[in-house]
This record gives sequence, structure tokens and C-alpha cells, in this order.
Amino acid sequence: MNWPEKIIFCEVGPRDGLQNEKTTLSVEQKISLIEGAAEAGVPIIEIGSFVNPKAVPQMADSDEVAKRLRRLPGVEYRALVANIKGVERALAAGITKVKLTLSASESHAKANLNKSVGELLKGFEECAAFARENGAEVSGAISTAFGCPFEGKIPVERVASIAGRFVEDLGVTELSLSDTTGMANPRQVYDRASHMIEKFPQVKWFLHLHNTRGMALANIVAGMNAGVIRYDASLAGLGGCPFAPGASGNVASEDVLHMLREMGIESGIDLDKMIALARRLQQWVGHDTDSAMLRAGPCGGTACAGK
Amino acid sequence: MNWPEKIIFCEVGPRDGLQNEKTTLSVEQKISLIEGAAEAGVPIIEIGSFVNPKAVPQMADSDEVAKRLRRLPGVEYRALVANIKGVERALAAGITKVKLTLSASESHAKANLNKSVGELLKGFEECAAFARENGAEVSGAISTAFGCPFEGKIPVERVASIAGRFVEDLGVTELSLSDTTGMANPRQVYDRASHMIEKFPQVKWFLHLHNTRGMALANIVAGMNAGVIRYDASLAGLGGCPFAPGASGNVASEDVLHMLREMGIESGIDLDKMIALARRLQQWVGHDTDSAMLRAGPCGGTACAGK
Repeated sequence: MNWPEKIIFCEVGPRDGLQNEKTTLSVEQKISLIEGAAEAGVPIIEIGSFVNPKAVPQMADSDEVAKRLRRLPGVEYRALVANIKGVERALAAGITKVKLTLSASESHAKANLNKSVGELLKGFEECAAFARENGAEVSGAISTAFGCPFEGKIPVERVASIAGRFVEDLGVTELSLSDTTGMANPRQVYDRASHMIEKFPQVKWFLHLHNTRGMALANIVAGMNAGVIRYDASLAGLGGCPFAPGASGNVASEDVLHMLREMGIESGIDLDKMIALARRLQQWVGHDTDSAMLRAGPCGGTACAGK
Repeated sequence: MNWPEKIIFCEVGPRDGLQNEKTTLSVEQKISLIEGAAEAGVPIIEIGSFVNPKAVPQMADSDEVAKRLRRLPGVEYRALVANIKGVERALAAGITKVKLTLSASESHAKANLNKSVGELLKGFEECAAFARENGAEVSGAISTAFGCPFEGKIPVERVASIAGRFVEDLGVTELSLSDTTGMANPRQVYDRASHMIEKFPQVKWFLHLHNTRGMALANIVAGMNAGVIRYDASLAGLGGCPFAPGASGNVASEDVLHMLREMGIESGIDLDKMIALARRLQQWVGHDTDSAMLRAGPCGGTACAGK
């Protein structure tokens, strides 16, 4: 098998992790989370989203979070946007990288944003141009890029076609394949990632994997073997599906970083600091989450010495 | 990546899953569990252990379970033994395959059985000979084959040396590498499994993986890529470490079988029947367990249609 020497990690907890939580964190808590991740060595942090606060009330204070944040040099603080208004807010708050997310499934796009993929892309062209004119970089994400709860498996051609629009029409060179509801499997991740890298070698590919069916770390193994070195994850595994109580959401950052450490793959991130952050975050949201590190701790402890 | 067309699955829930549970299942419940797994298509079932009932009270009724069990043709019903007395009991109960487990770590062997690895091997030679004289087959397992909570990483040479004793002194041709406390990582599993297959090509290798640090499915992906096609798992993910409450134990059979189904790898097992069995088992033991299938269900449902 082929392993990378190092990977590039993006913490999405402050955005994807918190957006569906019942508990609202204060601006101070969010800032402490983001600053903590940066201090632990995380090179990219998705700090929030600039979208309609009525639709996603948990992200209504992203402006204040971004403005008050103490930034470390060399760390990228990116945010999700969905329209020009969002780009304006992000720019005003000092964000220099905005992310545009499009679903590979028409049904999913319709259910989430009540727009067709074509309509969304049209709007995104304006967003991308406007962001660039104002000095911000643009990245993209394709949600339900493996499977969709409404449509089932998503054909690779459809994902490639949307990637093509991102690259050609929006000028994006950084794209994430998102397994939004945890339907990807290792064989599919390996095949799809290999296909995308071959078709779009100029793109910096991210994988954004959910652990809904327990396969996220297995999918990362497959992704690394396909040559992907950029991974999203969320502290404490926050970001579960709001319609399936108890189901896992994003794979836990600390579980990803622990596996990489055990495998001798460099992330540049302090695992112990991340576990401490995850524990604090779990206390703040006030419920159990899907994190092996918070349950069992890293390898090396003598906690589990049974038969 | 290289995927097998099919794998051979062994259900260890009735033994490894139940041996540390607080709740005692009745003989009828155990039989219903074993018969249910056989009816779902599981080809190998570890039905219990014939060991000192004072040390492992949950397995005290293995004799009765094995005697009363309705056996399906083509299914292998194996049991764990540790000494001649155990072999005698197993044979009397109609068991035709006994498994001998040895730790790769002296500290672990000492802590669990208060014997050295050498002493244990000596006793196992007698067991294996006695079992064969009486028409039973013998298989072996090496516990803490990747890491030990007392000794840390276990050198591959030590595992290979114990495998050699199993093969040469005990005449075993079927061996399991057990990640007893969930310390294996995918790179290590790939390297170690490849090494063992190369060194002992005549052995039928099993992997027995725990999900303590969330890496079990990732480790199975690595194992399959190394050429291992035999896997143990436990319904509902039962078999957690008694000293780390809440920590995961054996990887859940239904999670393994679901991943394989999604990857198009044949197991010959009915996933829905296994999920139903796992759900019933979880109700019997009366606590939550680490099973993605019992939380979120298989891919294909519309339960998790959020952003």
C-alpha cells in the first residue's frame, strides 16, 4: 500500500460541527476553539459560514467570531458562503478564503437550498468573481459526492461534471469531495479519488468524510492510497445528522490524527492538545459524541488490558 | 488497491462478545444467537469457551450450549480451550474444532493466565495432540499480536516466532492475529499480515480486530490488501474491555458485513438478518454498544438527509 509522508489537515468543527447543534456556543467559546486548534498546529480551519442566519442560526455570529479572532501566521481561516451577500460579510470580517458548496445530487440541492444545481452554479460564478476582485481566494466542495440519501449512489460522471464546472466556470483549484451522509465505502473512495486526480491533476483535492456507518477511517486509508493528502474532520466528531439522533457525523479530528500518528504519517499537529480541545467541546455541547479518543484514549495507555 | 472477491467470516460474539458482559444470557438465548447467525449464513461461529468457570463464569454453560445446539451442515462451530480438561469438555459436547490462544506479550500472558508463553506452549502441545487423537481439528490465535497495553508495540519477530511454534510444534495450519486491545493501525496490519503470509504461506490467516480506537474497518481494508480473507467480528460490537467502560471492543459484525456489501465483496451472509440479531442481542445485554448499523442503519435509508 502507498502512504503519504504527511497530510494537510482542515478542522471543520467550528462550522460543520456546530451548525446543527442544539446548544449555542458563545462567540468567546467559538474563538477559543478556533485559537486552540491553531495553537495545536492545525494549518486550515473552517471558522464558520456566512449564510442566512434564519436558515442556520448557529452561524449567525460568524462575523463577530472572524473579526475578533487572534490569527496565527501561516494558518488559513476559511469560511463557507452561498451568495454575494455572504461573500461581502466574509470579506468585511477579514476572511481571505471562501468555500462554495454544491451538491452532486439535484434532490439534495433542492431539499437543502430549494434550487437546482444549475441555478446554484450560476450564482456561484458571480460569488467567485466578486471574491477574487476583492482579494479573496475561492475553494469548492461537492456534497453528496459518493451517495445521496434520496438518490442513492451518485455516478462518478456527475461528480466529474460538477468538478469540471467548478474548475472551468469558477476557476477553482481546490476542491473537496464530501461524503455528506456517510455513504462512501473504501473501494468507491479509492476509485473516485483516483479518477478525479487523473481527470483534474491541477486540483488540490480534499476528502470530507463522515463516520455515519463507521467507515470514515477506512475511507481515509483508501483516499491516501489514491494519493489524496488533504482531509477535513471535526473535533469530538461533532456534526451528526439532525434527523438521525445518535448517528455519527463528521469523523472526529482526534481519531484521524491518532491514526496518522500511529501510522507515522506527519500532520504537524499536537494530538494531546486536540484531544483536550475535543473533550472541552464535548462538555460545552453537553452530549456524548462519536470519538474513540474521548472514550478509550490513544494507544499507549494501560486502560484496556483485558483478555 | 487489491480487493478479494469474497471473504470468510467468523462470528465470535457468543464467546468473545459475551465473556465479559455483566448480564448473563440464558442457554436458550445463546443458542438462539448461534442458530440465528448460522441461519443468516455465517460459515464459522465461535460458540463459547471451555475454560475454568471460576475465571470466566459467563462461559460456564458452554457444554450445555454446544450439546443442545441445532447444527446446520457446512457451518463450523468452534470453541476456545486452554488445557486438556477444556479439550475433553469440548469433545464431550460435540465440538470438532478447538482454538488455542497464546499472547505475544509475556506481560499479557502473565496478567491473564499467570503463566509464561513458554509454559503455555508446552501445555498446548498436549492439548493439540489430544484433540487430534480424538478427531478434532485445532486452530490457533495470537493475542496482543500488534500491541500490548503493558509492553507497547509488539515486534513482528516475536509474533512470527510464536506463529512458528504454533505451526511446527502444534501442527496448526489456521492462525488468527488478534488485536486484543485495539492498538493496531492500518500500516502495521498491512505490513504484519504481508510478512506472516510470506513467511507462512501454508497457514490460513485470520484477523481478529477490535475497534477500541475506531480503526477496525480501516485495519480490515489493510488486511484485505495484504491478502487476508478471514475475519472475526462480534454481533453488536460486544466484547468491550472490562477496564475501560464505554470503550469499544470487537468490531461489530454488522458494520464489517455492511462495508463488505457496499464494496461488492461477497460474504454469503444476510446483512439484514445480522442487524436484527445484533439489535436483539443489544437489548438482551441492556446497554448501548459500538455499532454504526444499530445507530444509523445501512446505506440506502433516507434517515440522514441533512446538510
